[in-house]
Amino acid sequence: MVLPHTEARPRPGHADREHLVARLARSARHRPRPVADLEAWLDARARANPFEITEVPFAELAGWSFAPHSGDLVHDSGRFFSVEGLHVRTDGGPVDEWWQPIIHQPDRAILGILAREIDGVLHFLLQAKMEPGNINGIQFSPTVQSTPSNYLRTHRGARSRYVEYFLEPERGRVLVDVLQSEQGSWFRGKRNRNILVEVTDDIEPHQDFVWLTLGQIHDLLHRQNLVNMDARTVLSCLPDHAVAADPADSGIAAAVARSSLADDDAAWQPLLQVRNWLTANKAGRTLMAHQVPLRQVRDWHHGDVDIRHRSGRFFRIVGRAVRASNREVTQWRQPLLAPCGTGLVAFVVRRLGGVLHVLAHADLRPGYRDIVELGPTVQCTPNNFTGANRPAYLDLVCSDQVQVHYDVLQSEEGGRFHHAVTRHLVVEVGPEFPATTPPDYTWVTLRQLTAMTAFSYQVNIEARSLLLCLRALA
Amino acid sequence: MVLPHTEARPRPGHADREHLVARLARSARHRPRPVADLEAWLDARARANPFEITEVPFAELAGWSFAPHSGDLVHDSGRFFSVEGLHVRTDGGPVDEWWQPIIHQPDRAILGILAREIDGVLHFLLQAKMEPGNINGIQFSPTVQSTPSNYLRTHRGARSRYVEYFLEPERGRVLVDVLQSEQGSWFRGKRNRNILVEVTDDIEPHQDFVWLTLGQIHDLLHRQNLVNMDARTVLSCLPDHAVAADPADSGIAAAVARSSLADDDAAWQPLLQVRNWLTANKAGRTLMAHQVPLRQVRDWHHGDVDIRHRSGRFFRIVGRAVRASNREVTQWRQPLLAPCGTGLVAFVVRRLGGVLHVLAHADLRPGYRDIVELGPTVQCTPNNFTGANRPAYLDLVCSDQVQVHYDVLQSEEGGRFHHAVTRHLVVEVGPEFPATTPPDYTWVTLRQLTAMTAFSYQVNIEARSLLLCLRALA
Repeated sequence: MVLPHTEARPRPGHADREHLVARLARSARHRPRPVADLEAWLDARARANPFEITEVPFAELAGWSFAPHSGDLVHDSGRFFSVEGLHVRTDGGPVDEWWQPIIHQPDRAILGILAREIDGVLHFLLQAKMEPGNINGIQFSPTVQSTPSNYLRTHRGARSRYVEYFLEPERGRVLVDVLQSEQGSWFRGKRNRNILVEVTDDIEPHQDFVWLTLGQIHDLLHRQNLVNMDARTVLSCLPDHAVAADPADSGIAAAVARSSLADDDAAWQPLLQVRNWLTANKAGRTLMAHQVPLRQVRDWHHGDVDIRHRSGRFFRIVGRAVRASNREVTQWRQPLLAPCGTGLVAFVVRRLGGVLHVLAHADLRPGYRDIVELGPTVQCTPNNFTGANRPAYLDLVCSDQVQVHYDVLQSEEGGRFHHAVTRHLVVEVGPEFPATTPPDYTWVTLRQLTAMTAFSYQVNIEARSLLLCLRALA
Repeated sequence: MVLPHTEARPRPGHADREHLVARLARSARHRPRPVADLEAWLDARARANPFEITEVPFAELAGWSFAPHSGDLVHDSGRFFSVEGLHVRTDGGPVDEWWQPIIHQPDRAILGILAREIDGVLHFLLQAKMEPGNINGIQFSPTVQSTPSNYLRTHRGARSRYVEYFLEPERGRVLVDVLQSEQGSWFRGKRNRNILVEVTDDIEPHQDFVWLTLGQIHDLLHRQNLVNMDARTVLSCLPDHAVAADPADSGIAAAVARSSLADDDAAWQPLLQVRNWLTANKAGRTLMAHQVPLRQVRDWHHGDVDIRHRSGRFFRIVGRAVRASNREVTQWRQPLLAPCGTGLVAFVVRRLGGVLHVLAHADLRPGYRDIVELGPTVQCTPNNFTGANRPAYLDLVCSDQVQVHYDVLQSEEGGRFHHAVTRHLVVEVGPEFPATTPPDYTWVTLRQLTAMTAFSYQVNIEARSLLLCLRALA
């Protein structure tokens, strides 16, 4: 890939950045159309772009096959992604050794959102995009959500719309550009480029695209499975844009705003100490993950229509055939990872010194590039844990001892995962909840969480998704 | 490893951080003893701690052997590190495929420096430490420079002195704590924990340790091979601490100070655009590095006393026997990587809009966790490039068309590398040098470089080392 020639020029810098925060805040308060209209628009796009997904056995997964020696599930072109085996040994958690299939995708996809001022308010260009694994077919997705295999036309389809704005960012002004990890139990070392570019070009959106304000996107986040994972992760990387709340207001919206604006003096601990906690956990844990041939993965059964764990838990690898009308390629077949059961991610929040803090967990996963990232208080598929070994705080967040501020089902990426839905919870605990934490948990403000999200491999995708949901409460 | 129980408490935060910058600035201006005294002290420690290094063939490298199947050079315990093979394919640079030996060390070492106020001035505790590969035996090193294999006593030696301050950081206040990469052509995915902890305990240093101010350390950086690589990388991660210079002063010291204090408005481009440039280079380049058995590494000859490239270039793997008096273990044998020739790293600097900028390069190496990091303008071993394919700007930085501000030999890590010495250059070019850069180069201020250094895998070890040398000019 040839990078564009850099034509660096002096540009407005810091003052402009301050300005951006105010412009984001304005966009968050602006709701030009009710959320029902947006749902109706999405339904209309779904009707206009019919698609059909059918289950197919591996033998009929045209273009894909099990490699002769390894048994890895690979594409004939050698591109896109593959399903390989992983052997994991670790010192952490109740299980210290296991084998599993895992998706390997060395390509770095672009998850790109275009922004533009319309009538003085920042809008973001989202796409009504079908993915074969989506539980409801179409969801609001980034402007571009595409791997190089796609946008460089490896599969001979059409080039992704608007991708030129992200490959040649000097066409606009970059507001976010950071490599971020994805699901560390399902992807091995995967990262995507989260990029947000503001343009001044007068872009008339294609019929499957729509300009939305942050306020409208926040509204959509209160409905289930409407804003896809890729859009959530890009938007979570924006700078904080809360507006100072009335000090007398003790509601959750005001508390979220205050936590987003809290400087280090108001926080339970300075950002440097949060980073010390994360580095200590990254450096202190041991996890050895070795790629192994998929056929050597123990405890997993390879059938005609799926690869599944002998316990029936965790996930299955399945095949799907797709017929669509509005994709670069209109029909194809592909494997998907189908989780067994609905996931759950939760932030426990508590006021400390009057400032809302979230209880972050040092989350260990074999697929992370650096073993540990900051994750939600609870992150699991509850069905996988029966009886003993239930994750810490799982029972608490599902109990009536907490005040529930947010409880919405959100989808994981439908291009790789089949009907992967995760319940997103934000629950508040009172002063009876201990401020002292176990060593793999710590308290952070929203401002600190946002600061950590600005750099790669610090905050995991589930915590980033919850961070965006929290901002939608303000 | 068991992490200490976190006893988080509200602590002074932001205001304290401002204070830190002022305290670092004071330490940088303070030179209680002339540099000759420090050299004399180091010589005295060398005489008090005699050691002997002798070459040994692999057959006599007790504790180490070539693994039966792979031919990898491994320790009998399976710990410390190993020398493996790597097969690299890339789209960048003049060579697009090669094989090479590479050091694999999954352990994350602690590179830790203790800080403490003495008579109101911050001092840093450095150690006179012998390493078998050091060209001059003993150098100023961090307080602790140790892998878990060492500080947890895998080799049954004494526990590293002062390591408790880094394993239980609540004993002090953490000023720096970040995982950083090391040499990306010689190490595969290596990272070390760079940590700096300020204490108030009245520590009377052991006779091999000494408290130095930043000013004294800056003085030492003007002498060759005195401050080892590990100390340089930890100190490079400190926040900037320049003091505003007289606007009329056009000298390099004033220019370094102004560049360290320059906000985004004064910079050639905002920090966000620098990060966009780095992410674009990380995302846009392809490099596939696969571990292969060392015996399958093509073009390398395995002899009795070394493993060498058939061209005689790049590096050799050799064996050494060590007898020392002040180490955790007093005698051992180990392999070392011996570069063929002196390395060269250079920052080209230029004033743009009156502010000093360094010309950064997007440096691609097989050992990086994320393919590309921000590196110096030039980074190579000149001997490896005869005739064609000479790296960009190499001839320029060695020519008389530039103004040389810094030209000192500094050592790479003596625990893994044999007599690895790198010439560090800072050279200034005038307005005739084009401001427009090729896509894999860009201009950054020292403040931006420092901001990038605060997070993992952004700025490579050679650029961090040069950043510290630049600060020593102020």
